[in-house]
Amino acid sequence: MNKFPQTARTTLKRLPYRGSYDRELINQILDEGFVCHVGFAVDGQPFVIPTGYARLGDKVFIHGSQASRMLRTLGKGIEVCLTVTLIDGLVLARSAFHHSMNYRSVVVFGRATMVDDPEEKIAALRALSEHMISGRWDDVREPNKREVQLTTVLALSLNEASAKVRTGPPLDDEEDYELSVWAGVIPLRMVADAPIGDARLPTNIDPPPYALFYERPPQKPDL
Amino acid sequence: MNKFPQTARTTLKRLPYRGSYDRELINQILDEGFVCHVGFAVDGQPFVIPTGYARLGDKVFIHGSQASRMLRTLGKGIEVCLTVTLIDGLVLARSAFHHSMNYRSVVVFGRATMVDDPEEKIAALRALSEHMISGRWDDVREPNKREVQLTTVLALSLNEASAKVRTGPPLDDEEDYELSVWAGVIPLRMVADAPIGDARLPTNIDPPPYALFYERPPQKPDL
Repeated sequence: MNKFPQTARTTLKRLPYRGSYDRELINQILDEGFVCHVGFAVDGQPFVIPTGYARLGDKVFIHGSQASRMLRTLGKGIEVCLTVTLIDGLVLARSAFHHSMNYRSVVVFGRATMVDDPEEKIAALRALSEHMISGRWDDVREPNKREVQLTTVLALSLNEASAKVRTGPPLDDEEDYELSVWAGVIPLRMVADAPIGDARLPTNIDPPPYALFYERPPQKPDL
Repeated sequence: MNKFPQTARTTLKRLPYRGSYDRELINQILDEGFVCHVGFAVDGQPFVIPTGYARLGDKVFIHGSQASRMLRTLGKGIEVCLTVTLIDGLVLARSAFHHSMNYRSVVVFGRATMVDDPEEKIAALRALSEHMISGRWDDVREPNKREVQLTTVLALSLNEASAKVRTGPPLDDEEDYELSVWAGVIPLRMVADAPIGDARLPTNIDPPPYALFYERPPQKPDL
């Protein structure tokens, strides 16, 4: 299925042309980002917490300490809204009113479930690690039994999701195009600086390529 | 007052040493970011929506179309959670378990109020513009009466807020420091690329310095 069903809560009421239910676009945005904002409500009180995530097939995983209040609350199966936002640029129009941003965002609705099976849990932890920095997992000490137990992993199925995207130049009122003011887009992106080795690192251990040349979106592996 | 009061909903249950109620730190994070994630619940259903914001004194402003469902809902005075997250780096430990991120985030709780007074509304719109890109407001056509009417501005008072911060190197289990694996931090930051002029721009209008040399955090104006 290439499109997500359009539901009441994923339907854009304003500027519907900016909305999309296209699975490939939604996956692409989810795969480029690596921090989401998880929203949930307890007795009507909303909470929005940033956390890492990874997509594996048609599921999004988040994880954290067994003691995390957020994960324990979400593990009970309450409604969650998981939002990923990529900022692509500032849009400078000729009028203050038409200033905007270029962005790509995804909203996922649903109820999360606890991942209890140790093998599925390790697969999710590996996906979370590889999503943040591909190649790292094979270099480090894998989680032991106790660490896996201490970690809570939640899965949110990609059943109900939508994307919202703005691209391109400013759109001014026709009469404003005559104004003598610069207009256009300032592209924004996240970059990595040179890695900083830990103070306790032996001098003969150099940073690996994935740390020296880190970039997002992650490079697709050669097939 | 230099500290926000610590309340039930701003108290960190886990790793409380990472939490802070310091007003200066919280203001600094709010002033460096420019996109927040706004969370609210309607009949228990949470929504998390990204949007621009600006701080002016002890208020945070958000704005958008009069027709925006989010703004109309929040304008009724329901509980809101506004979260700002800055990602500073990836923390690569010797074990998968101790991988982390360096970040600075702020959570603000409260109920938003509509800004109705036209003068206060324009002051807020100016703050929103200047917060996104300082110096722009004076160059562009200001909002006319109709545009001000079409824009909804909401204020959220900074009464109840907390920050959460992680900095520094990975913290590994003592026995893992012997492992022959690189560990450290990959710093991340947002950068601007060369501005892209609008296709309908006359050739004699060059991009202004604030577009050519855009950076965050915004440069503090000289006093």
